[in-house]
Amino acid sequence: MDKMDHFDELQEFLEKRQYRSLKDAFTDMNEVDIAQFITDLESEEQAVIAFRCLGKEQGAEVFANLEADVQESIINAINDKELQEIMDELFVDDAVDMLEELPANVVRRVLKNVAPEDRKILNQFLQYPDNSAGSIMTAEFIDLKEDMTVEDAIKRIRRTADEKETIYTCYVLDASRHLMGIVTVKRLLLSQDDDLISDIMDEDVMKVTTLDDQEEVAYMFSKYDLLTIPVVDKENRLVGIITVDDAVDVLEEEATEDFEKMAAMLPSEKPYLKMDVLTLFRNRIPWLMILMISGTVTGSILGRFESAFMAFPLLVTCIPMLTDTGGNAGNQTSTTVIRGMAVKDIEPEDLFKVIWKELRVALLCGGALGLVNFIRMMLLYRDHSLESFTVSIAIFLTVVLANTVASLLPMGAKILKLDPALVASPMLTTIVDAIALITYFLIAKALLPI
Amino acid sequence: MDKMDHFDELQEFLEKRQYRSLKDAFTDMNEVDIAQFITDLESEEQAVIAFRCLGKEQGAEVFANLEADVQESIINAINDKELQEIMDELFVDDAVDMLEELPANVVRRVLKNVAPEDRKILNQFLQYPDNSAGSIMTAEFIDLKEDMTVEDAIKRIRRTADEKETIYTCYVLDASRHLMGIVTVKRLLLSQDDDLISDIMDEDVMKVTTLDDQEEVAYMFSKYDLLTIPVVDKENRLVGIITVDDAVDVLEEEATEDFEKMAAMLPSEKPYLKMDVLTLFRNRIPWLMILMISGTVTGSILGRFESAFMAFPLLVTCIPMLTDTGGNAGNQTSTTVIRGMAVKDIEPEDLFKVIWKELRVALLCGGALGLVNFIRMMLLYRDHSLESFTVSIAIFLTVVLANTVASLLPMGAKILKLDPALVASPMLTTIVDAIALITYFLIAKALLPI
Repeated sequence: MDKMDHFDELQEFLEKRQYRSLKDAFTDMNEVDIAQFITDLESEEQAVIAFRCLGKEQGAEVFANLEADVQESIINAINDKELQEIMDELFVDDAVDMLEELPANVVRRVLKNVAPEDRKILNQFLQYPDNSAGSIMTAEFIDLKEDMTVEDAIKRIRRTADEKETIYTCYVLDASRHLMGIVTVKRLLLSQDDDLISDIMDEDVMKVTTLDDQEEVAYMFSKYDLLTIPVVDKENRLVGIITVDDAVDVLEEEATEDFEKMAAMLPSEKPYLKMDVLTLFRNRIPWLMILMISGTVTGSILGRFESAFMAFPLLVTCIPMLTDTGGNAGNQTSTTVIRGMAVKDIEPEDLFKVIWKELRVALLCGGALGLVNFIRMMLLYRDHSLESFTVSIAIFLTVVLANTVASLLPMGAKILKLDPALVASPMLTTIVDAIALITYFLIAKALLPI
Repeated sequence: MDKMDHFDELQEFLEKRQYRSLKDAFTDMNEVDIAQFITDLESEEQAVIAFRCLGKEQGAEVFANLEADVQESIINAINDKELQEIMDELFVDDAVDMLEELPANVVRRVLKNVAPEDRKILNQFLQYPDNSAGSIMTAEFIDLKEDMTVEDAIKRIRRTADEKETIYTCYVLDASRHLMGIVTVKRLLLSQDDDLISDIMDEDVMKVTTLDDQEEVAYMFSKYDLLTIPVVDKENRLVGIITVDDAVDVLEEEATEDFEKMAAMLPSEKPYLKMDVLTLFRNRIPWLMILMISGTVTGSILGRFESAFMAFPLLVTCIPMLTDTGGNAGNQTSTTVIRGMAVKDIEPEDLFKVIWKELRVALLCGGALGLVNFIRMMLLYRDHSLESFTVSIAIFLTVVLANTVASLLPMGAKILKLDPALVASPMLTTIVDAIALITYFLIAKALLPI
């Protein structure tokens, strides 16, 4: 059955108040799908009723996958005991994600309803800055001691696995919770029962600290094919772990942010359909306004050149094509460089390699475009060979300059620790437009009686 | 020590022929880093020498992480016995990735040097089309039978785990290798030794078929937080599994492809610094050429309007600002919609929701921009209130039309099963330019004596 048809059926159960059928349907469903169904419901009341049809354990997992506004409605509709049950089952990373979105009074009520030791961890985890490794880690992991045997370790895993988010990498800690090494369950299964953990653990652990940038951490998952990574404080004490599913989310979010910045928008916090019109307006209007104002400046340069070109109307007609071509070529280069840096194919020290490569690409592209344009203009305007030549040379030079600027700008931003996508993209067209016009004017002045 | 300094040290060992020191340094290093070091070496000969300093097991893992051209150099430099050793250790997905990049004569030599049963699997896996689930799966997984006990299963895992890419999800197969269910190692550890696999296995398995689109599969990993997913044929026989690390690579590649398409480039196959200038040229010139030619069309429309506007030079000056603003607004919308569809926040059935939302955002943005422009022009050109009004209304309408077109185009492409990023992005500016100019002209004609 198609998922949408399935959702329609569930919706019917809800409307006809066939809660037993709804309950039965839920037990066979994946929790992520149930969360999507509940999130998509138009009425807050229905969402709460649907949520109440879930069993205790499934309830917590569905809850973790709901959007913040639906979580808030549910919290406001349930009593303290129900809230406690959900919070008991929730993993720390999901609880932190939720608390960061909720209004202060709801947060207070939630924190009042968690066990004191959990409250301490939650309060600690809530302190980590946005976009830090600390902000995406969880506290549920298996810890072992060096003097345990493999048999002890497996017993400990069997005893505690049920409430851990991931069990396949275990962390070996000393008495002060310093991270001494890691042991995978695979390694445990391949060892003898009486082997000592200290003998089989891997001491050369890849790890990050709480304040590391979440993007860098997510990139380590992708580069080294990790499933989890431990997060330590400055004294190498283990405070949490990050799992690959959260790293995947970060990679997706960071890519989305780059798309938004490169299209001259402020980054969004929510999925598109969940954002209200005013938020979208606020994200989009600043750059639109800046670019409109800077467009008037280009317009006035343009106006001056146009009057200089008065005697050669053909030159005026070619202006939009010239600036557009420069903008397109520059945009190709800056997108390539910005994305290349985001996925670490390009590092700041590659600056000269990149410029040298872009220069050669620009010579080829600019040459081909100039040539085609020259042929086109000679076919259409046989008597204007000098103007055709002027326009073609201008196209060639504009592409070369556009590609150079478009590789310098994002790499320079990176070297200055600025955000390449933000610095290099929206302003690029305006800058390239100005460069194209000035180049055009200078060439025309040199070649034609202006 | 910084990684670059470390690489410099390794390079020195290599140049001074201190191969023992290099060997020692390698044993403490991560295989991904070693592969990067070898890939970065300028000389093919040095790359081969460095590779020979690796032990057998580390060698295969480093080999799997090398770029295709380095793999080829190494294969050409080693003898059949060494090649056999590497191929024995390589996982099927890595071997397939490599074989797809190598020239035919090298592929023949490689296939001659793998065990006959592996050769059969490799030949089968090489048949799956690019971008299909089959093309990214691997053949190394743990299979169990329904009548095994937990104790049997753990014994089987212990016996075979060493050569499997992942062991934490085991696949329960019947005699004809139909997929009956899955059991995680966590579940095994939480069960009693004499529990039957058929009693503890999860029969409601999320799975894909060999020909499913790899992007859809990768998206399932991100949505459902999966670590592996089984791949079955049409008869539900298990043929392979996909692991999360490969899904992450697909998500990253697909995002990069969308960046490239939206910046009017053909998608690249390799990291930027590995691409030669001619390939970059070939990826970029088609759209540059198309857009340059279509730019001349806009140019000629523009030319005609400009002469109509002769009596109102102020209107001419505002043309670039108007078309740029329309282009920027449209680009914001199309980027939002294309990315939203890529991460499944927006589905084709949301068409009217999206258009309605974009319309309201456009009314706000267009209104704000028009108003600010009106004030600016009234301050600068006090006597031209009618022209200022004309330009401002044109800005408002252009933004509204641009956002509408920019939401329709990618969603329409998706509904017609075309690629939204390809269809909607590069041509958008040209289309919006034409719309902006015609709108401007019509308004001017209605309001002014043209």
